[in-house]
Amino acid sequence: MYREAFIKTKGEITREKILEAARELFNTKGFNAATISDLVEITGVKKGCLYFHFPSKEAIAQEVFQEASGEFMEFLESTLGGDNPGASLDNFFRCALEKHIAAGFVGGCLFGNTALEMSDSNPEFSRMVEHFFDEWIYRLTTVAERAQMIGQLRRDIPSEAVAKQVIATIEGGIMMSRLKKNEKPMRECLDVLRRTLDLRVG
Amino acid sequence: MYREAFIKTKGEITREKILEAARELFNTKGFNAATISDLVEITGVKKGCLYFHFPSKEAIAQEVFQEASGEFMEFLESTLGGDNPGASLDNFFRCALEKHIAAGFVGGCLFGNTALEMSDSNPEFSRMVEHFFDEWIYRLTTVAERAQMIGQLRRDIPSEAVAKQVIATIEGGIMMSRLKKNEKPMRECLDVLRRTLDLRVG
Repeated sequence: MYREAFIKTKGEITREKILEAARELFNTKGFNAATISDLVEITGVKKGCLYFHFPSKEAIAQEVFQEASGEFMEFLESTLGGDNPGASLDNFFRCALEKHIAAGFVGGCLFGNTALEMSDSNPEFSRMVEHFFDEWIYRLTTVAERAQMIGQLRRDIPSEAVAKQVIATIEGGIMMSRLKKNEKPMRECLDVLRRTLDLRVG
Repeated sequence: MYREAFIKTKGEITREKILEAARELFNTKGFNAATISDLVEITGVKKGCLYFHFPSKEAIAQEVFQEASGEFMEFLESTLGGDNPGASLDNFFRCALEKHIAAGFVGGCLFGNTALEMSDSNPEFSRMVEHFFDEWIYRLTTVAERAQMIGQLRRDIPSEAVAKQVIATIEGGIMMSRLKKNEKPMRECLDVLRRTLDLRVG
């Protein structure tokens, strides 16, 4: 039992290898343009073996998305866990920026990219992305509401609108910073957000 | 001379047909995933004829982008041409929203999509997109500066940061509205922008 719980099977290792390569490939090349042949080339896993683990490119993409989505929710949970709601929001802004600086603004936001690529072409996938954004909006709304209650955020804007504005700014900021390969646009946009929302950290 | 100036040649008509189809295809499917075969199928123009007009998919994409970019700058020019800078910004917000409502939030923003798709993979194209965004930022900065001078916009944020924030909000707002196929997120984000920037129209 002990052994089974900690040592991965060869199949599990292959599966993870495929998912990891697919995540990077989808994010830099886009889902529609990425092919199973690309994955075969990158991973060295034979096509037959790849299809043994996943029935289709869509199936790989959905699993990649769910995995990334879970990780992001954990990131959100931990960055928003500050001493008070204002500090939590401020911390989330800072960590989101740092995350993308660390990635050199390559790849950008997997969720934003998928939103733009899938919105019109793949209804099933699109609903999954929509659900992800709803969850992100919901979590930010909750913190924004608490911040408003104790005067750490202006109160004349509904907390849900604040949440959407934060997400729009982050997604648009990443877009501009990716183009420039430079953190400045995203940093500036987050600073404008802090100031225009009267965000206080204590 | 008169005739030549107004009647298009068969070649010109074919060229325009290809560009028009390519624009829609790139915007819904993405540039990387779109193929010359797709264009042949959509337009009915034979492959040889298509290559007679354009040497490559890249060449078509660059021309599509330049054309769309020129149209957008005209749109910007006309929507920003209000009675005063505050009204101009407000009018631009409204017209940008209406443009995307009219399109049913299908396709989204060609420039934003291209930014996300090209930033990492095609340096030449990426510079073209960067130049487009710089121009957009510059034009909004000019109007924001004038609005600040006459008290139609808060003055504690540099006008260039205001411009970037406007663009980030529009791009992020379009992203969320496309997912929902519903104008609400984009409209809400633009309203938050009006309020948080203390935008006055008169």
